[in-house]
Amino acid sequence: DFMDALNEVTPAFGVAKEELEMVIQNGIIHYDHTIDEILRSGQLFVDQVRTSTRTPLVSLLLHGPPGSGKTALAATITRSSDYPFMKLVSPDDMVGFSEGQKVQSISKVFSDSYKSPLSVIVVDNIERLLDFTPIGPRFSNAVLQTLMVLLAKRPPKGRRLFIIATTSLRPILTDLGLSESFDSEIRVPPLSSLAALENVVNEVELIPKPSELQRTMQMLEQAGFGAQDDTGLNIGIKKLLSVIEMARQEPEAVGERLVTSLMGL
Amino acid sequence: DFMDALNEVTPAFGVAKEELEMVIQNGIIHYDHTIDEILRSGQLFVDQVRTSTRTPLVSLLLHGPPGSGKTALAATITRSSDYPFMKLVSPDDMVGFSEGQKVQSISKVFSDSYKSPLSVIVVDNIERLLDFTPIGPRFSNAVLQTLMVLLAKRPPKGRRLFIIATTSLRPILTDLGLSESFDSEIRVPPLSSLAALENVVNEVELIPKPSELQRTMQMLEQAGFGAQDDTGLNIGIKKLLSVIEMARQEPEAVGERLVTSLMGL
Amino acid sequence: DFMDALNEVTPAFGVAKEELEMVIQNGIIHYDHTIDEILRSGQLFVDQVRTSTRTPLVSLLLHGPPGSGKTALAATITRSSDYPFMKLVSPDDMVGFSEGQKVQSISKVFSDSYKSPLSVIVVDNIERLLDFTPIGPRFSNAVLQTLMVLLAKRPPKGRRLFIIATTSLRPILTDLGLSESFDSEIRVPPLSSLAALENVVNEVELIPKPSELQRTMQMLEQAGFGAQDDTGLNIGIKKLLSVIEMARQEPEAVGERLVTSLMGL
Amino acid sequence: DFMDALNEVTPAFGVAKEELEMVIQNGIIHYDHTIDEILRSGQLFVDQVRTSTRTPLVSLLLHGPPGSGKTALAATITRSSDYPFMKLVSPDDMVGFSEGQKVQSISKVFSDSYKSPLSVIVVDNIERLLDFTPIGPRFSNAVLQTLMVLLAKRPPKGRRLFIIATTSLRPILTDLGLSESFDSEIRVPPLSSLAALENVVNEVELIPKPSELQRTMQMLEQAGFGAQDDTGLNIGIKKLLSVIEMARQEPEAVGERLVTSLMGL
Amino acid sequence: DFMDALNEVTPAFGVAKEELEMVIQNGIIHYDHTIDEILRSGQLFVDQVRTSTRTPLVSLLLHGPPGSGKTALAATITRSSDYPFMKLVSPDDMVGFSEGQKVQSISKVFSDSYKSPLSVIVVDNIERLLDFTPIGPRFSNAVLQTLMVLLAKRPPKGRRLFIIATTSLRPILTDLGLSESFDSEIRVPPLSSLAALENVVNEVELIPKPSELQRTMQMLEQAGFGAQDDTGLNIGIKKLLSVIEMARQEPEAVGERLVTSLMGL
Amino acid sequence: DFMDALNEVTPAFGVAKEELEMVIQNGIIHYDHTIDEILRSGQLFVDQVRTSTRTPLVSLLLHGPPGSGKTALAATITRSSDYPFMKLVSPDDMVGFSEGQKVQSISKVFSDSYKSPLSVIVVDNIERLLDFTPIGPRFSNAVLQTLMVLLAKRPPKGRRLFIIATTSLRPILTDLGLSESFDSEIRVPPLSSLAALENVVNEVELIPKPSELQRTMQMLEQAGFGAQDDTGLNIGIKKLLSVIEMARQEPEAVGERLVTSLMGL
Ligand SMILES: Nc1ncnc2c1ncn2[C@@H]1O[C@H](COP(=O)(O)OP(=O)(O)OP(=O)(O)O)[C@@H](O)[C@H]1O
Ligand SMILES: Nc1ncnc2c1ncn2[C@@H]1O[C@H](COP(=O)(O)OP(=O)(O)OP(=O)(O)O)[C@@H](O)[C@H]1O
Ligand SMILES: Nc1ncnc2c1ncn2[C@@H]1O[C@H](COP(=O)(O)OP(=O)(O)OP(=O)(O)O)[C@@H](O)[C@H]1O
Ligand SMILES: Nc1ncnc2c1ncn2[C@@H]1O[C@H](COP(=O)(O)OP(=O)(O)OP(=O)(O)O)[C@@H](O)[C@H]1O
Ligand SMILES: Nc1ncnc2c1ncn2[C@@H]1O[C@H](COP(=O)(O)OP(=O)(O)OP(=O)(O)O)[C@@H](O)[C@H]1O
Ligand SMILES: Nc1ncnc2c1ncn2[C@@H]1O[C@H](COP(=O)(O)OP(=O)(O)OP(=O)(O)O)[C@@H](O)[C@H]1O
Ligand SMILES: [Mg+2]
Ligand SMILES: [Mg+2]
Ligand SMILES: [Mg+2]
Ligand SMILES: [Mg+2]
Ligand SMILES: [Mg+2]
Ligand SMILES: [Mg+2]
Repeated sequence: DFMDALNEVTPAFGVAKEELEMVIQNGIIHYDHTIDEILRSGQLFVDQVRTSTRTPLVSLLLHGPPGSGKTALAATITRSSDYPFMKLVSPDDMVGFSEGQKVQSISKVFSDSYKSPLSVIVVDNIERLLDFTPIGPRFSNAVLQTLMVLLAKRPPKGRRLFIIATTSLRPILTDLGLSESFDSEIRVPPLSSLAALENVVNEVELIPKPSELQRTMQMLEQAGFGAQDDTGLNIGIKKLLSVIEMARQEPEAVGERLVTSLMGL
Repeated sequence: DFMDALNEVTPAFGVAKEELEMVIQNGIIHYDHTIDEILRSGQLFVDQVRTSTRTPLVSLLLHGPPGSGKTALAATITRSSDYPFMKLVSPDDMVGFSEGQKVQSISKVFSDSYKSPLSVIVVDNIERLLDFTPIGPRFSNAVLQTLMVLLAKRPPKGRRLFIIATTSLRPILTDLGLSESFDSEIRVPPLSSLAALENVVNEVELIPKPSELQRTMQMLEQAGFGAQDDTGLNIGIKKLLSVIEMARQEPEAVGERLVTSLMGL
Repeated sequence: DFMDALNEVTPAFGVAKEELEMVIQNGIIHYDHTIDEILRSGQLFVDQVRTSTRTPLVSLLLHGPPGSGKTALAATITRSSDYPFMKLVSPDDMVGFSEGQKVQSISKVFSDSYKSPLSVIVVDNIERLLDFTPIGPRFSNAVLQTLMVLLAKRPPKGRRLFIIATTSLRPILTDLGLSESFDSEIRVPPLSSLAALENVVNEVELIPKPSELQRTMQMLEQAGFGAQDDTGLNIGIKKLLSVIEMARQEPEAVGERLVTSLMGL
Repeated sequence: DFMDALNEVTPAFGVAKEELEMVIQNGIIHYDHTIDEILRSGQLFVDQVRTSTRTPLVSLLLHGPPGSGKTALAATITRSSDYPFMKLVSPDDMVGFSEGQKVQSISKVFSDSYKSPLSVIVVDNIERLLDFTPIGPRFSNAVLQTLMVLLAKRPPKGRRLFIIATTSLRPILTDLGLSESFDSEIRVPPLSSLAALENVVNEVELIPKPSELQRTMQMLEQAGFGAQDDTGLNIGIKKLLSVIEMARQEPEAVGERLVTSLMGL
Repeated sequence: DFMDALNEVTPAFGVAKEELEMVIQNGIIHYDHTIDEILRSGQLFVDQVRTSTRTPLVSLLLHGPPGSGKTALAATITRSSDYPFMKLVSPDDMVGFSEGQKVQSISKVFSDSYKSPLSVIVVDNIERLLDFTPIGPRFSNAVLQTLMVLLAKRPPKGRRLFIIATTSLRPILTDLGLSESFDSEIRVPPLSSLAALENVVNEVELIPKPSELQRTMQMLEQAGFGAQDDTGLNIGIKKLLSVIEMARQEPEAVGERLVTSLMGL
Repeated sequence: DFMDALNEVTPAFGVAKEELEMVIQNGIIHYDHTIDEILRSGQLFVDQVRTSTRTPLVSLLLHGPPGSGKTALAATITRSSDYPFMKLVSPDDMVGFSEGQKVQSISKVFSDSYKSPLSVIVVDNIERLLDFTPIGPRFSNAVLQTLMVLLAKRPPKGRRLFIIATTSLRPILTDLGLSESFDSEIRVPPLSSLAALENVVNEVELIPKPSELQRTMQMLEQAGFGAQDDTGLNIGIKKLLSVIEMARQEPEAVGERLVTSLMGL
């Protein structure tokens, strides 16, 4: 009945447009050249899978600190591929699943993909798919083994598959022997320059008045966020957007609030 | 049948007023400015969730020593939000539940919340929801993973959710990798000044006679409870109220009994 | 069917007089003032629960070495409360129960108690309820979590509950994080003075002849049992009564046998 | 069906004469005064249980090296009690039982005993009942907890129970917290003197010719078996009887073979 | 039903030609003399099994770094044997299988082979069949024990079996006590000379223009890949073919891209 | 149904001649006097069980390095006993069995044996029956406990049982507490002299020409295989026979091949 349910809910062949939209709800802000580079690299892989016959399977790992934008970027690359099969494998859709149900659910997406000549699968948030916890450590070995096999299993003749996986715990994948399974890796860094931050603030129109903005940037400079080393700015785009919204709550002192929040992290 | 039972018992959409009342039975005594500050911060989050469209999910962690008043404060903030969906996720209602039942029960509250435009969920006493015990340590990884996913999962379009969680074991959450899941944290401290204690004693009318009260306060001062450091007063409001009731049992020597009890802790 | 069985066997509302009698079969011998103090403290708690409205839940831990009389004293306090609901939660009644059955059985007693305006529950021999063994250590986390929740869960409005728990492994409770769950603790010490022992011997009429008794007491004194430190007498009342019965087997040399047995421990 | 099977096989009230005979098949050889002392002590306990009303439950632990005769002695004491209920709880009858079946089977014997005014239960080979293995260590905690409760549980009013348990792993019982459960302990030593050995050899008529026997004893003396310390004779009666039978295989050189075998151990 | 399914899907007696083709899709490039030697050794074993009556069971382990070509070589040896029974035991076909299902599936292939006079079984990727993960480490002991028994179990009279197993984790097999189970071992090395690499590049016609090729080889030489020690070339054929395809994506700078990719590994 | 299957397949009372033949397919080569001694000792035990009434149960452990011939020798001793009940308990027949099925299967063989006046049971390859793996270590405690009980359990009156067990992991048995369960032990050594090897080579007619044989022996001598210490010959008969068959594949250079193979081990 679980399998029945799965079959009913998920069309065996198709495109999960809505789910992809969902995770890019706040859009992609091109605050930095790294964003463009990541998207271009993604495009190159999309092309290779489409054209080369000798590499019918290509896998890419996006890793970076929590909230750096991995899921949104993976979804953006996927959407732009416009392959006939595009699917998101996400822990969000597996709350309360048993190990076995997770394994079935993941491997169903892969079998479905084998029916399409061209497919992209986003395997999002590997550590959550694995039910990973650092105490122990504990994780689902069944899911791990499933991923290891599926990441290496060639699609049938005439089918090509591009896999994009994301994780915030890159080192763990090495411990688990999972990192060798990827053909390539790209790091998604946090924002680390005030220029990037300013781009974001402008994009979301937090401080429309230029003088006010300048004052705020100076405060951030003085607070030490301009340093190019570890002590400088270091925040994921997701958290930054959240901090910005809190600051927006106090319209009369947006700049101060922003600075205080960033210092409190 | 378990799911049937759940469906019958809990209206899928609604407000758990009674349960909220239940945990604030003894009221909130404003013995200190920190109480007001905590409540005001809570109100700010309530407002942000109501107004900001870019942060449809905000999560707050209330932590502090056992009996410091976390649950009562979380319930108070929740009640004052007056959102159409307000629910308490509490281990009290899950006695004898299996891991799977806990996961189902917790995730049902979240799915229900996704049907309301505005929701607050109090995730009370995380360590008990996790069946945490320091020996091992042991805990339910299934519940942990469920919480990690649900604390990060965006509600569907047009829905907004405010999550308040409480714990007495703040450091454990870091070990479990759970503390990064929260947007903000507030510490609920124990009472640490004689002034605060006097406020409580007055509020509950333990020692109505002023001279008697003054004598008691002097005894406490002499017993060293006035110290501003670790050696001074350090007691949760819950325990204090319990000690006060014991003292009340011996009407002829209330003050002495109070001092002795506090010293015996 | 297990629940059916439970429902048939245990009246949901009532008094377990027989079971209470059973554990005090040998009576309470007032060999020492500590016995009276423990019973008086117990009475004070019984009164507090009856009268104070702000503390509808009071929990007390009786701890002390094996056989020091914890269960008999808990039952005596309970019986003298004369509350409409008095129940003993004992491992003796759960031989062969699975973890789940123990949890159900324990939580049923608590739910039943919530139906009575005034209730006492004796949670006897916590370490056995927990299936605790020092190797590992191993224990039932399900039972532990159930106890932690039930010891802190307020009865519904208008209901009041007094919980008396017993244990021979007090330090373990701290390791398990269980000791913070109690409002108060009382230690039940072993017999440690020859005067106390003489009181017991008299009470059970082991050596009716005064000269004989005096000679026995001198032998014990000489054997070093009179010392006030660790090397002196140190025996639980339960074991002492057992040793006395063995001695009684040899009527011609009761005193000698008693002394030898005590020395052999 | 397992419970049905149990009910059919074991009469709820009765005497397991055959099983007792079985374990004493080779008889008791009084090779030493310790044997008589053990049997006499056993008799004293049998009398106490029969007569004293204050100690309706007495438990005794027989411990000693493998094959020292514990089971045979326990059965002998039991048989001589002539109580209306005498039963052997033995791992031999539980091959392939699950943990739960062991627990049920053990606790059934105890419930049955509660129906008889006077009962003896031999709990044989505790380490095997516990499925104990030193690697880990591993053992059945369910069986352990069952034994701990049943060894301390008073039989109902008017019923008296004598429990004799045996083990070759005395120190393990302490680690498991099980040794405190016994009222008394008796050590069953291995044979450690040549005189004792000679008694056995005579009893089983291994070397009928006196000169031959004398020569054999001299050989043993020379081989160092006469030493009173650790280097001397140290063998359980069970193994000794086995070695004797092997020697009997070579009638022409019985003495030599016996000496060689003992040296080879 | 699982067994039914298995029976339907896999003919009990036969040849898995297609599966063998599948894993050699990209062919075997004879880039080096080691490839020929491995294939010749394999042929010798094939002959021995066919002719010798005293060794009806021969097992061979192919081990080497990930992607060095083990599976393709095992399949090539198998195909060239032309035995009536040739089968691939591969984790690719066991995604989502339980431990028990894996054991059943593996042992079915062996029982089937016992029906053929001559059989080859490829046990591919032992570490994945074992669900091995280095954390813990964890693995399926049930599968391990099954393999240990089946690798040593003689086929019935008149049947002969050749087993080829592959692994990338040779040292683990020793830890698991599995390496003693093999009659012979062959290492499949990575490419380690520029001559071998040039052979591959020629074979797949990556750089048809000789001058261009020469330039590329010089760049590789200068990049240090010509070193005979650990710092030189060290890449599995599988990865090399993948890198070559990526380079092919940029036709104008194939050589540069190849060199960069190899340096980035 | 599992029990049904067992009952059908295995006649409850009988002789497993074929299985015994199977494991001695290659015969016993008397390459050394130790072989004769082992067989003679075995015969002595067979006689003792047949004649002595006081030792109705005798157990013997054959241990030695992998492939030293333990199983073949156990089967040979068994077959020559000609007892009415002779059975092989072998992991080969339990592939894919659960712990419970193994326990049932093993204990069924023992119960069956109790119906015959004289029985031999070969418990082959204890480490595989136990599913032993050194990592952890892990093993089936259920099977271990079953073996410990069955190795010590007396057959019913009038029945006699001889148990021969084999293992390549003698030290593990001590760790598991299993080695005390045996009445006797015999070591089955590997071949360690060139004379023994020459006997085998002659027996299987590998090098019929005397001059050729002599030359080969000289090569082995020069290769250092004649050393009497650890550096000399050390190979199990099973492996030696396998190496011999490989050498036979190259008729023109049998001697060289043999020497090379032995050096390569
Ligand atoms: N340049 C950008 N790159 C990625 N995301 C961006 C960018 N600009 C804006 N965003 C927004 O920032 C958010 C990034 O969140 P996302 O969930 O993708 O981060 P993440 O790294 O996957 O987080 P987590 O570590 O929690 O999985 C999204 O809402 C996205 O719309
Ligand atoms: N200022 C206050 N803040 C919180 N609680 C208060 C305050 N004044 C009085 N109370 C009362 O004190 C009690 C606090 O108990 P509460 O259960 O909220 O503490 P807690 O920190 O959640 O305890 P625990 O650590 O056991 O979960 C409640 O009965 C509440 O009505
Ligand atoms: N003053 C006393 N206090 C307690 N028990 C007494 C006293 N005088 C006599 N007794 C008798 O002593 C026995 C005490 O045994 P009880 O089971 O209560 O001890 P316990 O500490 O609970 O033992 P355990 O540690 O095994 O649980 C009872 O039989 C009781 O009737
Ligand atoms: N004096 C004796 N005491 C005990 N057993 C004796 C004595 N004399 C002869 N025997 C015989 O010796 C054997 C003792 O074996 P028993 O099984 O009782 O030893 P055990 O200590 O229980 O062994 P294990 O440690 O294996 O459980 C029995 O066959 C018994 O008949
Ligand atoms: N000489 C060769 N030897 C082996 N494979 C070759 C050779 N030449 C080309 N190939 C191709 O290289 C690929 C080798 O991949 P294969 O899966 O056999 O490697 P593997 O060592 O089994 O990898 P893994 O460690 O991931 O199991 C195959 O596609 C095969 O067709
Ligand atoms: N003298 C001998 N002793 C034992 N086996 C011999 C002898 N001579 C020839 N053989 C043959 O050698 C082989 C020995 O293999 P066997 O399986 O008995 O060894 P083993 O020690 O049980 O191996 P394992 O450790 O793998 O269980 C058999 O095929 C047997 O026929
Ligand atoms: Mg993400
Ligand atoms: Mg709380
Ligand atoms: Mg007690
Ligand atoms: Mg015994
Ligand atoms: Mg491979
Ligand atoms: Mg063998």
